[in-house]
Amino acid sequence: MTHTEQILQKIETNTEVVGVIGLGYVGLPLAVNFAEAGVQVIGFDKSEQKVNKINSGENYIKDIRDAVLREVVDKITLQATTDFSRMKECDALIICVPTPLDKFRKPDMSYIEASCEAIGQNMKAGTFISLESTTYPTTTEDLMLPIIERESGFKHGSDFWLAYSPERVDPGNKTFHTKNTPKVLGAMSEDGLIIGKALYSNAIDNIHTVSSPRVAEMVKILENTYRLINISLINELTLLAGKMDINIWEVIEAAKTKPFGFQAFYPGPGIGGHCIPLDPFYLEHIAKRFDFDLSMIHAAGHINMRMPHYMYIKIATALNRQKKAVNGSNILFLGVAYKPNIDDERESPALEIMDQVAHKGGVVDYHDPFIETVKTPNGKSFSSVELSAKTLQNADCVVLTTNHDVFDMEFVKENAQLIVDMRNMITEASDTVYKL
Amino acid sequence: MTHTEQILQKIETNTEVVGVIGLGYVGLPLAVNFAEAGVQVIGFDKSEQKVNKINSGENYIKDIRDAVLREVVDKITLQATTDFSRMKECDALIICVPTPLDKFRKPDMSYIEASCEAIGQNMKAGTFISLESTTYPTTTEDLMLPIIERESGFKHGSDFWLAYSPERVDPGNKTFHTKNTPKVLGAMSEDGLIIGKALYSNAIDNIHTVSSPRVAEMVKILENTYRLINISLINELTLLAGKMDINIWEVIEAAKTKPFGFQAFYPGPGIGGHCIPLDPFYLEHIAKRFDFDLSMIHAAGHINMRMPHYMYIKIATALNRQKKAVNGSNILFLGVAYKPNIDDERESPALEIMDQVAHKGGVVDYHDPFIETVKTPNGKSFSSVELSAKTLQNADCVVLTTNHDVFDMEFVKENAQLIVDMRNMITEASDTVYKL
Repeated sequence: MTHTEQILQKIETNTEVVGVIGLGYVGLPLAVNFAEAGVQVIGFDKSEQKVNKINSGENYIKDIRDAVLREVVDKITLQATTDFSRMKECDALIICVPTPLDKFRKPDMSYIEASCEAIGQNMKAGTFISLESTTYPTTTEDLMLPIIERESGFKHGSDFWLAYSPERVDPGNKTFHTKNTPKVLGAMSEDGLIIGKALYSNAIDNIHTVSSPRVAEMVKILENTYRLINISLINELTLLAGKMDINIWEVIEAAKTKPFGFQAFYPGPGIGGHCIPLDPFYLEHIAKRFDFDLSMIHAAGHINMRMPHYMYIKIATALNRQKKAVNGSNILFLGVAYKPNIDDERESPALEIMDQVAHKGGVVDYHDPFIETVKTPNGKSFSSVELSAKTLQNADCVVLTTNHDVFDMEFVKENAQLIVDMRNMITEASDTVYKL
Repeated sequence: MTHTEQILQKIETNTEVVGVIGLGYVGLPLAVNFAEAGVQVIGFDKSEQKVNKINSGENYIKDIRDAVLREVVDKITLQATTDFSRMKECDALIICVPTPLDKFRKPDMSYIEASCEAIGQNMKAGTFISLESTTYPTTTEDLMLPIIERESGFKHGSDFWLAYSPERVDPGNKTFHTKNTPKVLGAMSEDGLIIGKALYSNAIDNIHTVSSPRVAEMVKILENTYRLINISLINELTLLAGKMDINIWEVIEAAKTKPFGFQAFYPGPGIGGHCIPLDPFYLEHIAKRFDFDLSMIHAAGHINMRMPHYMYIKIATALNRQKKAVNGSNILFLGVAYKPNIDDERESPALEIMDQVAHKGGVVDYHDPFIETVKTPNGKSFSSVELSAKTLQNADCVVLTTNHDVFDMEFVKENAQLIVDMRNMITEASDTVYKL
């Protein structure tokens, strides 16, 4: 029996072992999905803390239900380990590690490279390998393949198969989660595509195959570049609308009545999270190798970088009308998560605005019901304060940075001296309510 | 009875007379809609030719059914005239004139200004006036109002009412037309808003009111800027994808499987028509008065302007692989309309590409089933040639510039020596089929 026949037979009988590398907000839900489907899953992570949590049935990802994780761990369908040598037990290895940008906005590929080295050194022949991390097109073929072949001594196509299948996790989305979000898959060979589709179909409802990994890599970048571009456009128009005495929120509501050819995006203090502020810049990076400048991404990135500064100006302007300076004023931020109802403050513009206000002498506090402590880009640490009438009254300015549903705006309005609303949480502007 | 009570009573009893100024693709369908609803309509246009056509029941707008026009003309519910003094017969005047850009991409407001002068000189007291032409925010309040008050000696609010309600006509759209596309309306006074909503409700299903004309003006610009930005983004990514050996059409199809947060746009030879290439630049124009640069629109405009040149390069590259030069080659363009299945070649990128090819010595012909003759931006005139096996065989290169449904691609493929497909009309690229 060939390796292809072997793995397909295992997949068909649900007896394959799937290894998931990286147990964050992408890897852990995927691992749980496979395990729920009755597939044996080994989760790999360098963090002892995460591995121990999982093995004791303790959930740390908001989108996974605690009981579901506990069940698959109790049944030992899902195990977690820091021991990468156990990769040889796996028939498939799925890489879900971070691909951050460094301080110069260049892709940091070290997590992918380290994963490929570990895979090459530990896997058995006949393993299917898939990358889910967002990255620039050509990564799978030009970066991963040589490392894995070098470290393993194996040959692609006969000894292993390599594919790319981007994650589409949208934290906090109540309708679409890992299982019912269609999955794009591109492999380096026809066998790899057949195996990958069969494998993922055990955990995910719909698999959309494409002709190559680089097409699949481009798909993910297109999806998030679309969002970056449109959020940046509406942020730029919002700054102009402010000068022209036009309520941009009213404009968007009216534009939404167009029944074709329009999708609404909303302004805010900037773009946050793990995808939209980063993904387009992977493409900008690789484009340089093709002597190409991406002017739309460039312009959008520029607007996004400036937004926290403009938001600082809004706060200073609001205080100034009350004859107060930022320097020495108490500024309370409501919400530091990068989007509503989640517990994730990665790349959140609120943190940058806090830094700017603090840098100019503002006395900064924040409240977020989901995030107890934060560290800002400038390295300052803050802890969430209680949201009481007193903390609101004590603030010279309350800044609405995240529109968590649990925030009681009536209570905030009753007690705050001055509000800067960056999220359209209060419909009417007034002498004491400043809106974007 | 006040003027407000009078006009509202007329509207309620369907006895108001509506004047529509400008009988093009916006004004004529609107006039027909009012007339169909039993409202007396007088259509004003400077063109004797258009006026005569309408009065003899001859239709020249593809989206209007001939029989419908004939019926309202026969019943004399709709009359057309070049005599602007008849504006005094009207209770409402709706302006649907063009707002082109001049050769320096500055808004040409002369049609609106001339309409306002004619209205001021001819209207009776108690007239409701609405502008539908796309324009920059503040036009209604700051440009139109002073002209009308000056020419009429009337006072806004007591003697007449001024409003802005952008047209949303999408030529060729089979689902949404004037009547069932929700209409945004902003007026300069509360009375004006009430009158405008009542009036338009006689002809249009849903009216969405906003707080001011400038909000309504911004709505239309946002809708079309959204489209410009996204088409430009996908065009830019397409140029990069070509260099990276990535089929962008496959990428878009796969991205469309994302069930949230994505809307597909398609690449092409550039942006055409009467709206998307123009509207965003009205905003760019007025932004300067507010010391503001719109970097997203600027970048998008730049990409769009370069597209015909890139398309010329594609043609030259395709010919070059067959050891042919553009100079002296026969180049046949299929489709000059700016979008499929319509008879409108305004701002069509095909015309610019034809100019570039002709300028470099190519022998240019075109075929478009809906457009008999065209004049290019460089002033060259062409007539549509027959689409036969022979014309296809005689062409060194056939360029697919508009994806009209009636084009038979099998026939084209069978007979053409070389095809450059700018609209994804042929799925598979090959030695003789070049795709974007």
